[in-house]
Amino acid sequence: MISTAEELRRYGAMTEARLSTLMELKCEPGTLKDAMSYSLIAGGKRLRPALCLMTADMFGSAVQALDIACALEMIHTYSLIHDDLPCMDNDVLRRGKPTNHVVFGEAYAVLAGDGLLNLAFEVMLDAAVKNEGDGLNYLGAMHVIASAAGVRGMIEGQACDIAFEGQDKDEEVLRHIHERNTGAMIRASVLSAAALFRASEAEAAALAAYGEKLGLVFQIVDDILDEVGDEKTLGKSVGKDADAGKQTFARIYGIEASRRIARDLTREAQDALRIFGTRASGLASLAQYLLTRDR
Amino acid sequence: MISTAEELRRYGAMTEARLSTLMELKCEPGTLKDAMSYSLIAGGKRLRPALCLMTADMFGSAVQALDIACALEMIHTYSLIHDDLPCMDNDVLRRGKPTNHVVFGEAYAVLAGDGLLNLAFEVMLDAAVKNEGDGLNYLGAMHVIASAAGVRGMIEGQACDIAFEGQDKDEEVLRHIHERNTGAMIRASVLSAAALFRASEAEAAALAAYGEKLGLVFQIVDDILDEVGDEKTLGKSVGKDADAGKQTFARIYGIEASRRIARDLTREAQDALRIFGTRASGLASLAQYLLTRDR
Repeated sequence: MISTAEELRRYGAMTEARLSTLMELKCEPGTLKDAMSYSLIAGGKRLRPALCLMTADMFGSAVQALDIACALEMIHTYSLIHDDLPCMDNDVLRRGKPTNHVVFGEAYAVLAGDGLLNLAFEVMLDAAVKNEGDGLNYLGAMHVIASAAGVRGMIEGQACDIAFEGQDKDEEVLRHIHERNTGAMIRASVLSAAALFRASEAEAAALAAYGEKLGLVFQIVDDILDEVGDEKTLGKSVGKDADAGKQTFARIYGIEASRRIARDLTREAQDALRIFGTRASGLASLAQYLLTRDR
Repeated sequence: MISTAEELRRYGAMTEARLSTLMELKCEPGTLKDAMSYSLIAGGKRLRPALCLMTADMFGSAVQALDIACALEMIHTYSLIHDDLPCMDNDVLRRGKPTNHVVFGEAYAVLAGDGLLNLAFEVMLDAAVKNEGDGLNYLGAMHVIASAAGVRGMIEGQACDIAFEGQDKDEEVLRHIHERNTGAMIRASVLSAAALFRASEAEAAALAAYGEKLGLVFQIVDDILDEVGDEKTLGKSVGKDADAGKQTFARIYGIEASRRIARDLTREAQDALRIFGTRASGLASLAQYLLTRDR
């Protein structure tokens, strides 16, 4: 049986190759394209594309969902570029590299983010128009993604982050933020593939439950690693959230209780997949992998 | 016969009403929504929606294109919010009101812009999913708009503006910028309606030619008004572009020659509509109206 790490590498390679092709666009001045590529082709886990492609493989074939997967990564990348801006989190390093605005200046960073968000829809619409027979399925997938990325999803989460900055947050507020900031797009990664393949309502509900739990686990493990992770393995400085006075699950519950919550949520995520039987073993293993990751 | 000013008021009122309904969305914190509404419901000519609705009326009914028209205005508004940011044009006033970042701060202004761009696609996708029978027509309309708004359209134009700032521009460069910065979305306003109603290739080509000429006329008249317009009538300060050392048509050719170029382009725009006969009289009158506007 192929390992989860191996699968992630395979989906990652598919995504990298397609992203490179999609970025072969002509636009003047070249700086705009350079700024977009700098952040988009900068590595990273490619978790959202992998979730989308793995789900697509369960229903049909990953290849058909490749442009959807790339759009998810473009939206994720644009949100990081804008999040790092001086007026937002003011981060100068990401994945060990200077952030976009440090390299290209703030104006290009704003436009590169705008460009990637817009390009995500262009890429999906190009694919939909080219495969008109599947046009309505693409509509469904785009609808899922647009809702998750928007002001009732990811952008709402980022606005909450600003609104509650420096304030004490209880678990409820923290969940509200995480469900939107990280959770919404992780959920949309599996649900967009489900929509593309016209999954049944029961299947979509199962994947929504899986995606929601997975998103929370991802965030809790992030919080734990920020407290106890190894800087070298992680490739980023630890203790940053704590230093910034940010409330995290690890802070509210302590490391041990957070680990237990993450384990419970992982089991619930895997249980949600039961209706798919062994077809979902990849997604189940991925949940386990994300729980035990050290980076 | 109903006057163009009257028609613009009617389409404007339709757009205002629908935009208000579309902004009745629940998102927390309310500041994000307030920032989006502040710029979106701030008046303005509503030219892009009017072009879309007028074209839709020619093919069928404006009501069917209303959400597309609102999406065009959302994209236009987001581009203004980001354009006004300190790192871009650093404008503090627009339509006589403090700009978005002056009122809500830069972080919210970035997110409000992101939110409006994303919401434009949400609104169109909502409409497409609700009218699944017309789903493929919506795909075509969204494809037109996404391409025009993106890094080979409007965003490219804005990046050019940055790249050439303070440099001498000849007419070719100026046209390159304007065709993208203003022209692409004006062209998309008529073409998106054409796509929604599955216009023939010849009809779409005619409307593309009309939209292109109209976009240039709009920009040239803007340049002329910036030189000789009345501040009170315009509702904004004049001479700003000239003071900023910006190259404009009026600067390159002088006022009189610019007026002649605009007149010629207007006639060409009207000629392009010939295949529609009297059905296009509204669009033809609108071109005349934009040529002779004083605000």
